[in-house]
Amino acid sequence: MLVTRRLNLLLRTIEKTVSDKHASLSIAVSEPSEPKVVTDIPGPKSKQLIQELDQIQNVGAVHFFCDYDNSHGNYLTDVDGNVMLDLYTQISSLPLGYNHPALINAVSKPENLSTFVNRPALGVYPPADWVSRLQNVLVSVSPPGMTQVQTMACGACSVEHGLKAIFIKYMSDKRGGKAPSKEDMESCIANEAPGSPPLTILSFSNSFHGRTMGALACTHSKWLHKLDFPMPAWPHVRFPDLKYPLEEFVEENRAEENKILEEVEDKIEEYNKKGLPVAGVIVEPVQCEGGDNFASADFFQGLRDITSKRGLGYLMDEVQTGCGVTGKFWAHEHFNLTDTPDIVTFSKKMLTGGFYNKSSFRPKEGYRILNTWVGDPSKIALLGEVVNVIKEDNILDEVKVTGDYLLSGLKQMQVKYPGMLSKSRGLGTLSAVDFNTAATRDKVMANLRKKGVHTGSCGEKTLRFRPTLLFQNKHVDVFMERFDDVLSQFEK
Amino acid sequence: MLVTRRLNLLLRTIEKTVSDKHASLSIAVSEPSEPKVVTDIPGPKSKQLIQELDQIQNVGAVHFFCDYDNSHGNYLTDVDGNVMLDLYTQISSLPLGYNHPALINAVSKPENLSTFVNRPALGVYPPADWVSRLQNVLVSVSPPGMTQVQTMACGACSVEHGLKAIFIKYMSDKRGGKAPSKEDMESCIANEAPGSPPLTILSFSNSFHGRTMGALACTHSKWLHKLDFPMPAWPHVRFPDLKYPLEEFVEENRAEENKILEEVEDKIEEYNKKGLPVAGVIVEPVQCEGGDNFASADFFQGLRDITSKRGLGYLMDEVQTGCGVTGKFWAHEHFNLTDTPDIVTFSKKMLTGGFYNKSSFRPKEGYRILNTWVGDPSKIALLGEVVNVIKEDNILDEVKVTGDYLLSGLKQMQVKYPGMLSKSRGLGTLSAVDFNTAATRDKVMANLRKKGVHTGSCGEKTLRFRPTLLFQNKHVDVFMERFDDVLSQFEK
Repeated sequence: MLVTRRLNLLLRTIEKTVSDKHASLSIAVSEPSEPKVVTDIPGPKSKQLIQELDQIQNVGAVHFFCDYDNSHGNYLTDVDGNVMLDLYTQISSLPLGYNHPALINAVSKPENLSTFVNRPALGVYPPADWVSRLQNVLVSVSPPGMTQVQTMACGACSVEHGLKAIFIKYMSDKRGGKAPSKEDMESCIANEAPGSPPLTILSFSNSFHGRTMGALACTHSKWLHKLDFPMPAWPHVRFPDLKYPLEEFVEENRAEENKILEEVEDKIEEYNKKGLPVAGVIVEPVQCEGGDNFASADFFQGLRDITSKRGLGYLMDEVQTGCGVTGKFWAHEHFNLTDTPDIVTFSKKMLTGGFYNKSSFRPKEGYRILNTWVGDPSKIALLGEVVNVIKEDNILDEVKVTGDYLLSGLKQMQVKYPGMLSKSRGLGTLSAVDFNTAATRDKVMANLRKKGVHTGSCGEKTLRFRPTLLFQNKHVDVFMERFDDVLSQFEK
Repeated sequence: MLVTRRLNLLLRTIEKTVSDKHASLSIAVSEPSEPKVVTDIPGPKSKQLIQELDQIQNVGAVHFFCDYDNSHGNYLTDVDGNVMLDLYTQISSLPLGYNHPALINAVSKPENLSTFVNRPALGVYPPADWVSRLQNVLVSVSPPGMTQVQTMACGACSVEHGLKAIFIKYMSDKRGGKAPSKEDMESCIANEAPGSPPLTILSFSNSFHGRTMGALACTHSKWLHKLDFPMPAWPHVRFPDLKYPLEEFVEENRAEENKILEEVEDKIEEYNKKGLPVAGVIVEPVQCEGGDNFASADFFQGLRDITSKRGLGYLMDEVQTGCGVTGKFWAHEHFNLTDTPDIVTFSKKMLTGGFYNKSSFRPKEGYRILNTWVGDPSKIALLGEVVNVIKEDNILDEVKVTGDYLLSGLKQMQVKYPGMLSKSRGLGTLSAVDFNTAATRDKVMANLRKKGVHTGSCGEKTLRFRPTLLFQNKHVDVFMERFDDVLSQFEK
């Protein structure tokens, strides 16, 4: 064993030395230059596997099976050998694309081995390197003004525990800092007031925050996510429905947003009067699943003003918008808020779930925000590599360049196909365009896939772009050429 | 890169050949023979790290920091060099102890590399080997009579989505198989009936099912988990409070359980009449966090009878009791139920969350039970090694042997210290003993730690044992010698 281990350590060190530098360069080399489609998608092998998986679980959501060993960078290969430019990237959860050398390196690093093997109960028995990992990785990219961070396993759990931090803060304020009473402690065990108070969270129509009960209660996008589940009677108001192009509808859009901010105040009053006080507001900086709906910095500042004035929590859900996709590390940095949100949740491209919080939203007692694993240090090991690549290769600048190029391409397509396309919009590479109908959108997506471009939809009739952080102008060209081709066939 | 990869592949193959066989043997060799305590616990290095972590998050639950690189088998080493026999094993989540060669092997296997690097959106784009992994790992250890399995990231999510499967089944039955109406689909988006019906889940006092809103609504153990959080008004009834020794209180315990089964029926009737119909019952086969409370097979059969008769879902939460700790792979196998539970949730020692379900509890539509990751194939790669070790080394038999030895030791201690100890109980190595007071229990745990034995508590005044699956009689001896020593000091 000892000899093997020493040999392995040596080889890992060699491997590290070779691959450590210019990681993004190597991926560029190994990536295909264009898509290659050799069968229908899903092809025969995918279909066979879908049939087999159907014996074990519902397969209604499975698109195709993937050959991850042979996927590289922005290109996803399926089990039938089809090579697709991936603009959806595992529901927007791949920061550096497939098989990035920096991530391969992280798994191979000898000092990480025990991290992958021994998953600890992080909140109780953290590993020796946990503080430095948190500092070098999560704290190093924390949103401006936020110093506190808590890891979690996934996006929904991050939202659930972020909401809990808001409830704890609200009730702690209400107790005036006093310890909870015996009645508080006993009644909460039975789900009863006063220990379990009838607090609510205000959310927005078309929002998506996750699929566990608390996160789902704030979600209002599609019936498939919500049907048949009992839900608390929490309030929601419309999300702004901006008119495009934005520069032509400045007044109208401002009026729309101001009206909604008034509705937010009214709804809070209404629920407070009903005995269902609103403890906080949850919002995505860009609504993703609900249709890539943008609102202005003024709107988000308005929500900050309302929540600050009333002493409510303000949760910015950056599960899909964080980790640099908008050209800033956190999308809400674009808003230049006068005061930071109270909670910022993350997951997906961050590889670990979790949330940042203001010090004032940090629970005073231990064990209040906890579970067995509270995340996974091996995901932080991987995220550490991602953060290094982002910093060393100035990825945020790259994202801005590619994002501008993508958006200008979409706008050109919109001019060329005005009957089909509208509302080209984006921030960094997080961008989208609407179709005239859902049927057209779906048909275009199917035809794009036949040409080896894999995309994702959202909302009612929106095509959304969720490429990797290493998506470049040349990839935009590969997409745009095929997009134009597909759209032109519709015009005929 | 290519040369390095080939070299690495070769070395990994060598390593595999060396370590593949007799994995548990090698761990036995590298494991210390007894604890070694060199500082207070937490020691100076732990204290320093706790202080540093306190800058980033609440540290109220942190016991000490660990040196996982230098922890082996059943022995956990902290950052101050203290070596402890670990009877709590990361809140019962370590199947094979620290740095087991089979798990090191899994991380090093070349065919697993891409699995650790590319985490997919499993429910939409599964990897080529996903079906065979599911079959060889999760399906191969499925509870008798259950063919369907769904992975999830953690225990709470497993419970949340298991409950959702129950709600879907209940409403689908109510619709008589018909498609949901337009009203159903529209109302659920706003958290309103009929699409979001006021269904409830019946749970038991002292239960623990997780910390997200739905799972927490079924949890009734400690106020620290629940205070300040709004909770749905779901019903719960007492869990049986059995008298020990069981053989002396057969009639009393049967009467207690029968009374509670009646209370369950009454509570269901009460909630149905209130317009809050009960859609399912959730229960742990042994209540863990709530105090290691056991009930008889008859009680669990009674719950099966009630739920079957009424067409309700029966969720057996095996997050802490599964993966062989009771001497059977699933604790509920001890009950020999006439019909399997409808949902069996798992996590912790299984390394992945998830749930098994009966075919009738499989949602008909895709996207109903889903999230971005729906688990993590790299955890299944690790679990595959665990399952192999369990099968090849007949670990379940070992667990029975060690469990019997541990329980008989506890009973001897109980005879020796009748004023302090009571209710020695266990199934496999999942065992516990009660103290006369919480203060004594806590003091004994502190003194045990000074002797290098790390234990966990549960309930009001219970010491619980949650060792690895490789815990053997010799480890029991190490513990029992120190336990006796600590208890004897109290007697003086």
